[in-house]
Amino acid sequence: MRIGSNLRTEKDRAVLRIRAKVLSASREWFDQHGYVEVHGPTIIPVVGDCSSFFEIKYFNSKAFLTQGLQPYAHYFVSSLEKIYTIAPTFRAEKVNTRRHLTEYWRIEVAQNCEFDTIVKVEEALLAYICQSLSKENVELFSCFKRSVKDLSKIQTPFPKLTYDDAVDMLQRDGFNIVWGQKLSWELEHHLSLQFNSPFFIAKFPLGVETFFHKSDPDRSELTLSADLLAPEGYGELGSSAQRITEKKVMSKKMTEENIDPADKNWYLNFMQSRAFPHSGFAIGLERLMQWICKLSNIKEATAFPRLHDCIYP
Amino acid sequence: MRIGSNLRTEKDRAVLRIRAKVLSASREWFDQHGYVEVHGPTIIPVVGDCSSFFEIKYFNSKAFLTQGLQPYAHYFVSSLEKIYTIAPTFRAEKVNTRRHLTEYWRIEVAQNCEFDTIVKVEEALLAYICQSLSKENVELFSCFKRSVKDLSKIQTPFPKLTYDDAVDMLQRDGFNIVWGQKLSWELEHHLSLQFNSPFFIAKFPLGVETFFHKSDPDRSELTLSADLLAPEGYGELGSSAQRITEKKVMSKKMTEENIDPADKNWYLNFMQSRAFPHSGFAIGLERLMQWICKLSNIKEATAFPRLHDCIYP
Repeated sequence: MRIGSNLRTEKDRAVLRIRAKVLSASREWFDQHGYVEVHGPTIIPVVGDCSSFFEIKYFNSKAFLTQGLQPYAHYFVSSLEKIYTIAPTFRAEKVNTRRHLTEYWRIEVAQNCEFDTIVKVEEALLAYICQSLSKENVELFSCFKRSVKDLSKIQTPFPKLTYDDAVDMLQRDGFNIVWGQKLSWELEHHLSLQFNSPFFIAKFPLGVETFFHKSDPDRSELTLSADLLAPEGYGELGSSAQRITEKKVMSKKMTEENIDPADKNWYLNFMQSRAFPHSGFAIGLERLMQWICKLSNIKEATAFPRLHDCIYP
Repeated sequence: MRIGSNLRTEKDRAVLRIRAKVLSASREWFDQHGYVEVHGPTIIPVVGDCSSFFEIKYFNSKAFLTQGLQPYAHYFVSSLEKIYTIAPTFRAEKVNTRRHLTEYWRIEVAQNCEFDTIVKVEEALLAYICQSLSKENVELFSCFKRSVKDLSKIQTPFPKLTYDDAVDMLQRDGFNIVWGQKLSWELEHHLSLQFNSPFFIAKFPLGVETFFHKSDPDRSELTLSADLLAPEGYGELGSSAQRITEKKVMSKKMTEENIDPADKNWYLNFMQSRAFPHSGFAIGLERLMQWICKLSNIKEATAFPRLHDCIYP
């Protein structure tokens, strides 16, 4: 049993201090740009495939632990226009890598805008966080292989690939991938090694993304979605998308995905039919910390990491 | 099924905006006073009575949802001295009142200090929040029976009763209470009606409090603990205490409380034996909002309230 090992060394303390600074820089940026902080529910019902959700005994019924603001985001956006939340997120996945926690914190944004805008918001926020950290005392980073100078170089606009570009690059470099396939960790990792700035992969094919994402009006086989990746081999930090706002389109998608009619019914009742566009993104705080501090294992990015095989201490 | 009703009216929006301002005022105060933001785990093992905890299916074992930073707080304090967290909290209690949610957010503080200091920190934070809100645009409060002038009057020091005083007052007012009994909601409510400022009830008897709390060195039948109550009948907002830091004392208390030996063992292994005093408090965000906005039901203090009989939408 690992006993509180993440709080003993100077490095452990530095991680926690940098983590707090990432949070305060984020909130500073949100304040400056008129975003309102909100809290969605942690305990939720799940629509569709619930295999990656943790199940809770909720008195005589069952409930699940959240994986993000969907489908609550559009309610907040319709009331407050631009919102963010910083909250814990849960994935019941038995993955044994150096980049998976079962409990992590996400920085999530939703607002009344089109896809192109949300990508710009995401990169502006991340660049601001890096610029803020670069002004910190050099000593704070002395335990890590990251220098404040590296962080000062992170500026917008970030490089942008399409999913098509990514598949081309990977095929050219000898990887066995066909169009329409999900990008595995190994493929992402290879792409990530080609960059020294965070970058985007945009417009994933329909099958790869969830039913919340709007189709690209120019090419209906694509979605208005993008993953944000860290450079230097660290891979995915977050993802963004424009959401479907038309009930008819959502209803059709849910039928295609074989969503249970009762689930579909409450979801569509809950969904507002509003004409305004609505987009959002989420960045994983521990993944961001892992890249910023060049941590070899994501466990080091939080004081009491939760892994599929351990909930202690 | 209630469909997103908390985000439709001007009042709903005002609650969310004030909630965001309470959060930012809190963080402003924490920044000014050198507190570092941390995140404890949400998924935890439970030591002792777990009947009020939500249980999670955690792969092949079981785990629970957190009710606060204990027992992790002392690790953070030993590394960072003064810390705070703002995070969701869960109680599996079937209570049907206007002041209980199964999921709520707590503002929690822990630091290297004695009991008297933590009470001063708690009142200073709350007074700062009220003062900050009192400088807001009057219109923000136009939907509520609360005026910014009321809030401007909230200043430290807050009135302080001891548990002994509280029992005397209640007996004098004709309530049937004997020393050593827990203060029920009705009794708290009565006391709360006597004040027009938040106030403390300090030094509860041993049996009323959890095994984490240190005994009063002057009167060993009391604990170094205090509840913070809102005035005007709103009742408990939060609680504070000095924690036990000696392993021997904790071990004895755990035996008295019939804690399972395996649980006791990991807990004591995990516990650091450090000589420094360590105290903390937690304030329920929704309870605070209920008082600040004079909301008749705590459900109105959050966008998607979770109640024991409903997890929708």
